[in-house]
Amino acid sequence: MEKFFYPESIAVFGVSEAQSNLARVIVENLVRFGFRGDVYPVGTAQGLVAGIRIVASLDEVAQVPDLAVVLVPARYAPQTLEACGKKGIRNVVLESGGFSEFSGERQALESEVLSIARRHDMTVVGPNCFGVVNLEIGVVLPFFIIDPEYTKEGSASLISQSGGVFYDTCMLCSVENVGLRKLVSIGNKLMTNENDILEYVLEDKGTGVVGLYLEDFSDGRRFMSLASSSDKPIVVLKANRSPSSGEIAKFHTTALAGDDDVADAAMRQAGVIRVTNFLEMVDCFKIFSLPVLKGKRLALISRSGGHGVLCADAAKRYGFEFARLSDGFFEGIAQKKLNVIAVTNPLDIGDVYDLTEYGSILEMALQEEGADGVVFIVTYSSESDGGKVRDFIRFASRVTPAYNKPAAICVVTNRSEWFGIKEAADLPVFTDVDQAMKALEWSYGHYLAKNRRPGAFPEDFTRPRSEVPTGEGPGRRFLEPEECFALLSRWGLPVADHCAARNRDEALAGAARLGYPVALKAGEAGLLHRSEAKGVVLGVRSPEELLNALDSMDAKRYLVQKMAPPGREIIIGGRFDNEFGPVVVCGLGGIYVEIMADRSIRVAPVNDETAGRMIAELKGSAILEGARGSNPADIRALRDVIVRVSRLLAENPGIVNLDINPVIVYDEGEGCLIVDAKMEMTG
Amino acid sequence: MEKFFYPESIAVFGVSEAQSNLARVIVENLVRFGFRGDVYPVGTAQGLVAGIRIVASLDEVAQVPDLAVVLVPARYAPQTLEACGKKGIRNVVLESGGFSEFSGERQALESEVLSIARRHDMTVVGPNCFGVVNLEIGVVLPFFIIDPEYTKEGSASLISQSGGVFYDTCMLCSVENVGLRKLVSIGNKLMTNENDILEYVLEDKGTGVVGLYLEDFSDGRRFMSLASSSDKPIVVLKANRSPSSGEIAKFHTTALAGDDDVADAAMRQAGVIRVTNFLEMVDCFKIFSLPVLKGKRLALISRSGGHGVLCADAAKRYGFEFARLSDGFFEGIAQKKLNVIAVTNPLDIGDVYDLTEYGSILEMALQEEGADGVVFIVTYSSESDGGKVRDFIRFASRVTPAYNKPAAICVVTNRSEWFGIKEAADLPVFTDVDQAMKALEWSYGHYLAKNRRPGAFPEDFTRPRSEVPTGEGPGRRFLEPEECFALLSRWGLPVADHCAARNRDEALAGAARLGYPVALKAGEAGLLHRSEAKGVVLGVRSPEELLNALDSMDAKRYLVQKMAPPGREIIIGGRFDNEFGPVVVCGLGGIYVEIMADRSIRVAPVNDETAGRMIAELKGSAILEGARGSNPADIRALRDVIVRVSRLLAENPGIVNLDINPVIVYDEGEGCLIVDAKMEMTG
Repeated sequence: MEKFFYPESIAVFGVSEAQSNLARVIVENLVRFGFRGDVYPVGTAQGLVAGIRIVASLDEVAQVPDLAVVLVPARYAPQTLEACGKKGIRNVVLESGGFSEFSGERQALESEVLSIARRHDMTVVGPNCFGVVNLEIGVVLPFFIIDPEYTKEGSASLISQSGGVFYDTCMLCSVENVGLRKLVSIGNKLMTNENDILEYVLEDKGTGVVGLYLEDFSDGRRFMSLASSSDKPIVVLKANRSPSSGEIAKFHTTALAGDDDVADAAMRQAGVIRVTNFLEMVDCFKIFSLPVLKGKRLALISRSGGHGVLCADAAKRYGFEFARLSDGFFEGIAQKKLNVIAVTNPLDIGDVYDLTEYGSILEMALQEEGADGVVFIVTYSSESDGGKVRDFIRFASRVTPAYNKPAAICVVTNRSEWFGIKEAADLPVFTDVDQAMKALEWSYGHYLAKNRRPGAFPEDFTRPRSEVPTGEGPGRRFLEPEECFALLSRWGLPVADHCAARNRDEALAGAARLGYPVALKAGEAGLLHRSEAKGVVLGVRSPEELLNALDSMDAKRYLVQKMAPPGREIIIGGRFDNEFGPVVVCGLGGIYVEIMADRSIRVAPVNDETAGRMIAELKGSAILEGARGSNPADIRALRDVIVRVSRLLAENPGIVNLDINPVIVYDEGEGCLIVDAKMEMTG
Repeated sequence: MEKFFYPESIAVFGVSEAQSNLARVIVENLVRFGFRGDVYPVGTAQGLVAGIRIVASLDEVAQVPDLAVVLVPARYAPQTLEACGKKGIRNVVLESGGFSEFSGERQALESEVLSIARRHDMTVVGPNCFGVVNLEIGVVLPFFIIDPEYTKEGSASLISQSGGVFYDTCMLCSVENVGLRKLVSIGNKLMTNENDILEYVLEDKGTGVVGLYLEDFSDGRRFMSLASSSDKPIVVLKANRSPSSGEIAKFHTTALAGDDDVADAAMRQAGVIRVTNFLEMVDCFKIFSLPVLKGKRLALISRSGGHGVLCADAAKRYGFEFARLSDGFFEGIAQKKLNVIAVTNPLDIGDVYDLTEYGSILEMALQEEGADGVVFIVTYSSESDGGKVRDFIRFASRVTPAYNKPAAICVVTNRSEWFGIKEAADLPVFTDVDQAMKALEWSYGHYLAKNRRPGAFPEDFTRPRSEVPTGEGPGRRFLEPEECFALLSRWGLPVADHCAARNRDEALAGAARLGYPVALKAGEAGLLHRSEAKGVVLGVRSPEELLNALDSMDAKRYLVQKMAPPGREIIIGGRFDNEFGPVVVCGLGGIYVEIMADRSIRVAPVNDETAGRMIAELKGSAILEGARGSNPADIRALRDVIVRVSRLLAENPGIVNLDINPVIVYDEGEGCLIVDAKMEMTG
């Protein structure tokens, strides 16, 4: 991707002098941002743009430009790319819209572009995008006007699947004085997807935080692997939370792990921060321009009692603790003879009217060993305070780096001072303390994620073995119960004793061998809701009862199964997700998972530690730990089941859906038993 | 309160010419905002302030001012109030700080002020406050500079317990171009609390929405009664969410209904909107300046595909539906030959470059009968679009009132246009679509709350009968089990058959009368955790077993109780809340309520309909409705229990805590049975 960000020469296709011409804006942006390389506007009509002559074709250009930016009507895109290819250009930003996003028929046009690009060994970004920005050297390729005055260079890089969101973020960052670095609008992702860009910007020295706006993941597992291998914070606004469709009725686990649930779990698993809107994205850019928060203890300083209370509430809401400030801190305050209303944490400095003291109070708080970070609310800066608050922010931006802790400053001010406060220094200024606290939670969460073991994805990965037979056809099939149990057994999973039977005699013999009581189940695949379809009889206590049960069941084959003693019921399952591949789910059985939707999801495989975390994060996990006087359950055995199921899924991508429901978990040391399972696979 | 908002003459105490003098700012604000009444600055030094002569005392003033504003050091407050009283002034805004908020010792000073005020029949707002603002006639009494240029008159009134938050809200409203009307900073609430002001502003014609910042409720029941009797939206930022303290161990229901949980429930019950921060408060002011949303169906229009997706996500997140737009709508679009990318809802108008068409598209959407409201995202207004977007907003502000539906417009723009867009018209402009959707949810919630029956608080109220004996002392006592059961029975509650026994013979006789199996319980009050204290033996099946149980129990009195058949276990309870008085709680028994904290809370009493709603809002209510093939429970009987318990609590404020745990609910038509209960009361 290097030449997309650091080209020495750029050809821009589709340029004319016309006021309404959009490609012209690209050339103007390049000039406006002082791009020092060569720029060649290409267009059908002669003319000058930003003082540069428009050429009719690349034939008029001696050198081979490093990069072509194409903004011609979609139908002319193939011939333009062909010309680029013939000239020897290898990197193309195709900004034109009117491809697959417009209508299905245009898919062909996109395929044509793709084949031309492949033939000439070209890399294409787009189509239907705003292109690339690298503020470091003035590469500014969007076809909307960007004003250098409002576009600060900084450490936040952005990858966006939507042009509109890309533009919004630029503008919001300018309003909030947040510095940007490398921005890419990836559009229809024809050849270049978010992972290609992400891999590049994660290696970019100047990039401190990466934001992504995505409507789908092109390759979720590669994304997870990239994200988990970098220490840089990655912030994702993942839109398009549409529910998954037809599967819901057939498998519990699918209903419990919809597409967006899986995306959510995958992002958490990879240590990625998910935000809900782009205001939060900008808040992330702000907080990650500060040192990361390495603990929960905050020193809170506010200029009014009310703000102190709101600050304390917000701290509690986001799980922070009030730092215990040292006697030295309070002595320092006393020595300064500051009229502090309450010498506590939160510290109310509403009666300190000498604003020059704010800086030293902040620095004293940063020096406190007991404080991992500081929140400082400097609100009600009236007309008269304006200059002093700006001075305070400048002071803060100078002193804070030495302490390697974040100081989140919140200011609300008048309309006249609004931008002045934000632009006083390269230090982020939050408006509401709630925003600041949420941002600090992201910062601390990032710290925890990057210091967590295992940090890498995938955990303990082994290559797919595809032990599960997968057919050729597009269809799917259910495994027969016997086949499914056998597979689970081969993976070392504790399946209740059972045997297959094709007739009465085999059933009776099997039951005799297993010992009564037994369960009788129809042995055919696809009898999904067995209890409803009269496909199961539980608690069969004698040969007579078994014969009755056989009579009542309309099946050609049977499964006779040893009845399992009661215990705590768990559901474990998984499915193949289109974006993230094999996924494992667990939840407490029955009513908890059905009514409370209490479950944990991970992209498979997981190791023992992660399996433990999956169990622990269930709201009802207290039930397993021995709530209400019961004995603790055999969580160790349960972890082992989760790990094995996750590997089974990860190594057999042919498994479309798996429900193990229930796994009965016994008291500590007594293991688990899989009582029922169903599996659907490709083919 | 009339004279606080509409005084004809105002005396301001504590004024001097000094630059640092704060009372001076009050006089200047009055002049700046064109207050037309008489203003008398009072101060110890001679001089002129804003062209008005400072008088040394009220003796120099012929008339009796309608209102005095006092900003003298706290220790001089009593003598100043005394002077006001002697002069005949009846209304005082005491802005000085340094009272009870500063230290406990200053409580005496506050009491002194109170007794002076009472002696002279004066009403005091404050102390420790920013006073009163009524923009209608230029009454602007805060001692910080307010600039008329940035202070728009509008329909939002504010009551704030914190000066800092009061100031913040003023500034944020100026930044967001939100119009304000009557504002009161109530400070320490010595004589005048939020309810006194609320009652007034709810009657104020020009007030369309009331915001409150509160750290405590002075009289929660009066607040609920005021709020539920008005159709105006009331928005509360309730801070100070500290957990309730020592009670947690003793009563389940107390743990399940902490102070903040009760405040939360009470606000919902009274149809009040609770927000988390003051940005949300301002968003409420915005949305309630539009017609209220009367349905769930939204027409979504956006200027980029990405925004359409985000808009659709947000709509789903907040529970909205996509309006089905009529053929006429799409024909209208077609007739205009607009190049619309996707003729769907959300409608993507990214290729409509003629911004003058935006207005007519908006109006067409408002005309749709199938749409209850419109969300319109007009983002990426570049430098060149600025004027046209402003025109669109002005157009929208003109056409929307005719349709009596809200149109929430979202704009992100450049720094240079930021305020221009917001100030284009008296129409609120949101930044992010998430904010707009959340605001619409508040609007729709308000609509539902005001059309809900019963709407008034309290429901079916009868006066306290205090049937429960309350002692004189500050202590508390537990009712003995027999006493507690008897009380519940008298209130028509279905208590399991039982009898008291003082010795073996009485116990045996009682058990014989009730019929085995029985439960034996220690009969003394205060044996809280009976099962742990060996104070209960369940399932006693014979006289022999009963004798053994009696031997094992270290008690002087006993309760013999008929064993109840199993059923679904519910916990019902309540407590006396310091802010809201008697409160009733219900939850599903055992693990659900303990681990999932799944419970409903209401301020008591409740009627049958509300009791039904309490049950329905439990996450686990499906269990009662007959999930997983079981029969539906007798919800009707359960509702009746809740109603009776709520009345018992409401009419007996001497009850401090009540746990009925469990109530066993049987299948439909088979009723409920209270198996265990404990109660603590004052004295």
